[in-house]
Amino acid sequence: MIPTGEDLTQAHARLRPHIRHTPILCIDQADVGSVTLKLEQLQHTGSFKARGALNAVLTMPATATSVTAASGGNHGAAVAWAARRAGVHATVFVPSFSPQIKQDAIRRHGADLRVVDGFYADALEASQKFAADQGAVHIDAYDDIATVAGQSSVGAELAEQIPAGDVVIVSCGGGSLFAGVSLALRGRNTVIAAEPETAPSLASAVAAGRPVDIDVDRTGVAVDSLGARRAGAIATAVALDLRSTVLLVPDQAIRNAQKHLWDNLRLSVEPGGATALAAAVHHARDLADQRITVVISGANS
Amino acid sequence: MIPTGEDLTQAHARLRPHIRHTPILCIDQADVGSVTLKLEQLQHTGSFKARGALNAVLTMPATATSVTAASGGNHGAAVAWAARRAGVHATVFVPSFSPQIKQDAIRRHGADLRVVDGFYADALEASQKFAADQGAVHIDAYDDIATVAGQSSVGAELAEQIPAGDVVIVSCGGGSLFAGVSLALRGRNTVIAAEPETAPSLASAVAAGRPVDIDVDRTGVAVDSLGARRAGAIATAVALDLRSTVLLVPDQAIRNAQKHLWDNLRLSVEPGGATALAAAVHHARDLADQRITVVISGANS
Repeated sequence: MIPTGEDLTQAHARLRPHIRHTPILCIDQADVGSVTLKLEQLQHTGSFKARGALNAVLTMPATATSVTAASGGNHGAAVAWAARRAGVHATVFVPSFSPQIKQDAIRRHGADLRVVDGFYADALEASQKFAADQGAVHIDAYDDIATVAGQSSVGAELAEQIPAGDVVIVSCGGGSLFAGVSLALRGRNTVIAAEPETAPSLASAVAAGRPVDIDVDRTGVAVDSLGARRAGAIATAVALDLRSTVLLVPDQAIRNAQKHLWDNLRLSVEPGGATALAAAVHHARDLADQRITVVISGANS
Repeated sequence: MIPTGEDLTQAHARLRPHIRHTPILCIDQADVGSVTLKLEQLQHTGSFKARGALNAVLTMPATATSVTAASGGNHGAAVAWAARRAGVHATVFVPSFSPQIKQDAIRRHGADLRVVDGFYADALEASQKFAADQGAVHIDAYDDIATVAGQSSVGAELAEQIPAGDVVIVSCGGGSLFAGVSLALRGRNTVIAAEPETAPSLASAVAAGRPVDIDVDRTGVAVDSLGARRAGAIATAVALDLRSTVLLVPDQAIRNAQKHLWDNLRLSVEPGGATALAAAVHHARDLADQRITVVISGANS
């Protein structure tokens, strides 16, 4: 049900020649305090999703010639990119609220783009139906061993970059990044999930003891990347097993973190990509005396 | 006349607690090839200039209570930032073509901003006169041992980050970055200077065997940061001593490099900051079979 240690080790070794080893930057400024940034928005396609997508493509049956995916945008661009690298065809279904910049990226990486009326769940259904009808391999955005194992390579890199004991905060939508990094750093670093108040899918799943549907506020600033209606089963199992902390963040804190990254570092980061930093600042009092690392997870806005 | 090894070692140790250890990122893409980026535009104030300015401020006489500088913008913001850190007053003279964003940054960091009709040479004269009249310490943008020794810390970091033998390309205006990095990496890495075709101050100095005034094309895209009319005496001495290569880059290549960094990495870099990458791409044929590291030197545009 969740990736094994062997899954993680193999994924990291498999991805290492293809993905960017993204750098860290330590900053210390009045408004955000002392924090280490893992600049994962510099990854291929502008988000960590390239890792999971490529791991899934590289581990699918050798006979597979096409893949399909559903996505708010980043996972779709990642699947398109990974498929092109592997020389297979990709079809990507996005809900109509997916930002134009993300739809353009999916096309630019060579995928067939299909826009679906409705939300992520509708795109997911279309992708799964397409897979069944056409014999394409559906690559899930977060509830898939290969996807989560791929994202875990962010954690494998962090294990080489930051001290044991640092608290690591990652943004959470469906939870593949959270699950992968938590597993990779288990016993070495505490990993905290950060969710927008407008889409608390993992917080709700942890409270209920299982993934549950939530009402997502579609006006939330990070809805396109973190607006999952239901947390992944893998992420939920990991959070329950590790008794993980989930921090909720108001939209204004997300906007402030995004603005901070632009004003002070000229880093262009999407709201979902700034949510972990927003959690570090918004919950600074609760995190006092801890050394904090946040993953900047996406650039596409 | 040029900094000693001891100057460099002391500057690096002095600056280390205050400056950002900026990260490297290895990229490999069709249009720019395989290259390592030193992301120095993430430095305090958005350019490497923070290093030299702070080293100068931290080594001035303990009795000094105010500093002055002339700058196209980046050095001015750096001096303002360094002065505030050290609790001394800063006055910064900029020529009228200095971009508004740079003038704003100088003010934001707490300096008195004085806009001078004319070019950098006029601002320099005003700063030197102000220093003489008011007893302020003039911090030179490039022809100063302390400034060059501060910039050399970019090279000291690279010695920990990249393999010996990599060719390092840095942008060059007055040449403090070029001189500092060349000295820090001497015997370990070959350092090449990259200049806009519109402002070949170091190339002209090397050809003449001494700094000479050149005609700077004021329409050049990188003129505010790299448009020095005359290369520094220190940079010229270093280039002659090390028989350094100077590569000239057309404006279009600079714009292309700037666009590449934005399109593929969402990094906002000023033209001068992208000039080393532009040189690597424009002169790729001459650099074939070499491992290349470029310093991305400024973000402010």
